[in-house]
Amino acid sequence: MPLTVPTDRDVDVSCMGNALVDVLAHAADAFLDEHGLVKGSMLLVDGERSRAIYEAMGPGTEVSGGCAANTSVGLVSFGASAAFIGKVRDDQLGHIYAHDLRAAGVGFDVAPAPAADPDATGRCLILVTPDGERTMNTFLGIAGRVAPADVDFGLIERSALVYVEGYLWDRPSTKQAILAVTDAAHAAGTQVAFTMSDGFCVERHHDDFVALAAERIDVLFANETEICSLYGVDDFDLAVEAAMSRRGVSFLTRGAKGSVVVGDGEAHEVPVEPATRVDATGAGDLFAAGALYGLTRGADLPTCGRLGSLAAAEVISHMGARPLVSLGALARAAGIA
Amino acid sequence: MPLTVPTDRDVDVSCMGNALVDVLAHAADAFLDEHGLVKGSMLLVDGERSRAIYEAMGPGTEVSGGCAANTSVGLVSFGASAAFIGKVRDDQLGHIYAHDLRAAGVGFDVAPAPAADPDATGRCLILVTPDGERTMNTFLGIAGRVAPADVDFGLIERSALVYVEGYLWDRPSTKQAILAVTDAAHAAGTQVAFTMSDGFCVERHHDDFVALAAERIDVLFANETEICSLYGVDDFDLAVEAAMSRRGVSFLTRGAKGSVVVGDGEAHEVPVEPATRVDATGAGDLFAAGALYGLTRGADLPTCGRLGSLAAAEVISHMGARPLVSLGALARAAGIA
Repeated sequence: MPLTVPTDRDVDVSCMGNALVDVLAHAADAFLDEHGLVKGSMLLVDGERSRAIYEAMGPGTEVSGGCAANTSVGLVSFGASAAFIGKVRDDQLGHIYAHDLRAAGVGFDVAPAPAADPDATGRCLILVTPDGERTMNTFLGIAGRVAPADVDFGLIERSALVYVEGYLWDRPSTKQAILAVTDAAHAAGTQVAFTMSDGFCVERHHDDFVALAAERIDVLFANETEICSLYGVDDFDLAVEAAMSRRGVSFLTRGAKGSVVVGDGEAHEVPVEPATRVDATGAGDLFAAGALYGLTRGADLPTCGRLGSLAAAEVISHMGARPLVSLGALARAAGIA
Repeated sequence: MPLTVPTDRDVDVSCMGNALVDVLAHAADAFLDEHGLVKGSMLLVDGERSRAIYEAMGPGTEVSGGCAANTSVGLVSFGASAAFIGKVRDDQLGHIYAHDLRAAGVGFDVAPAPAADPDATGRCLILVTPDGERTMNTFLGIAGRVAPADVDFGLIERSALVYVEGYLWDRPSTKQAILAVTDAAHAAGTQVAFTMSDGFCVERHHDDFVALAAERIDVLFANETEICSLYGVDDFDLAVEAAMSRRGVSFLTRGAKGSVVVGDGEAHEVPVEPATRVDATGAGDLFAAGALYGLTRGADLPTCGRLGSLAAAEVISHMGARPLVSLGALARAAGIA
């Protein structure tokens, strides 16, 4: 194993990220153009812009989301134990959010912000175009204020891995929370996994992310755009080469082209699982769930990649970013776990 | 035509009912037993019981619902114009509710109750069992307080039909609203349609519903259980016979056995449209949408029934109580409209 995942911990993975209620709606490509939205990307919006897009979009379906939280639900679906660290407000959407996580079996003990806080529970307006691609408009609200004080550091010490989403680097307090969590993790022998989240996110925080990847991240998740942007290269093969020289393991996803898992001086190609893409929301989050599950079970790297592909295939085959069936059962049926 | 639907109105149908956000979750049959719930029925619950069921149930999906509101959305999907009369609070779920109706093209101008009102926007916890049947637990909240003061009586006069859900008879203020709306409708030559809503609802208000059916309702919607309960008979054929003697038109639905449309001294049998039942939520509401759409277009009674069957088949084939595709296009494809 290119990294040492502790096997004696209470919690397999603690996931830290933005607590967001997804508002999913179908939209035509013209809607994206009209509102200046880039298909497949995530845009941070303020309350006013969020309201304007919401007013214009069609009837929605509300489901609990947030990248790292989706990953935590995926982990439990595989049979792992997981906790979530993120911030909601004591409001209707906050109650729904906490309920859904706990009902899915994820530990969630971060105290909500009081109802009187001016920042509401965050939400992400997700426009799903006819090609199944999703375009996200995130109003962070209180999610953007998760801070070191919200973190139960005992939980970090009791976890085999922590998993952090790069989106959290967008705000000062959440950045402090990432640094505090990763420091605590390394002190406790807890492995640190991190997703680059989004190409624009890597652009916004390029130098910071380069430093994080070199110094703090044991398990890196990035898609093709993100890893090329991180290493300042145009060619995926060059990015893989660059990733070979970093510490730990890197899971590099390429959509329909599958993924490459880099670790221990080797690069393993992993194919996608066949699926009809209805809604791409959550594909990366669930890939991470499968890969992390594999790591906690001591699977070899290609198997970790296959578990990721399996989970991603399930979640893109329906609306919403959380699995509708037991991923553990799927893995057993596929003879992987 | 057994009734005279005005053809010169601005609005085809104004629908009045409980404004409820649906919280849909899959549940095992054992969950219903454990919580003393009767499959397929609607139970009115208080805030405490609603919270207890919610705590125990799995992760949910939130979508705007409410029977008459679902019908209004179905009408617009057919190409008709519709408005909704119901009450939400100025809170997160209330905003979502109003957005979804307006985004679907339904007129909705009832002022929300202030945020400080102790009654929140109503919600309906819907447990969908593996057989596709749905069991509903309704916390009315502010929805149960729609009152004559909330009604725009000009809208009633500008509508060809008003459609009222029987569930509204459960509360004093909503009962007054029904009486005021139906009085205003009859004074304006607006036809009054009414659904009996639920077998238990007919039991709770039996004598009132008998009087309503005899004196106020031009277009009656009832399923087999409801119509048998209304007329105090065990046999559906006897109920049809009883319905023959009442004013106007009666649409009597029988689930998989199709429906019978009674009017003008005749009873017409209408078959169901084939569909795989994924979630029965909204079947009756969408049947009503199709039937009412037919009436506003001057279709004969069997055609009205077929339009109802078509819409019901669409909505039971997926989770949620509102159509995912254009019902107008479906009707054209079926050569009905």
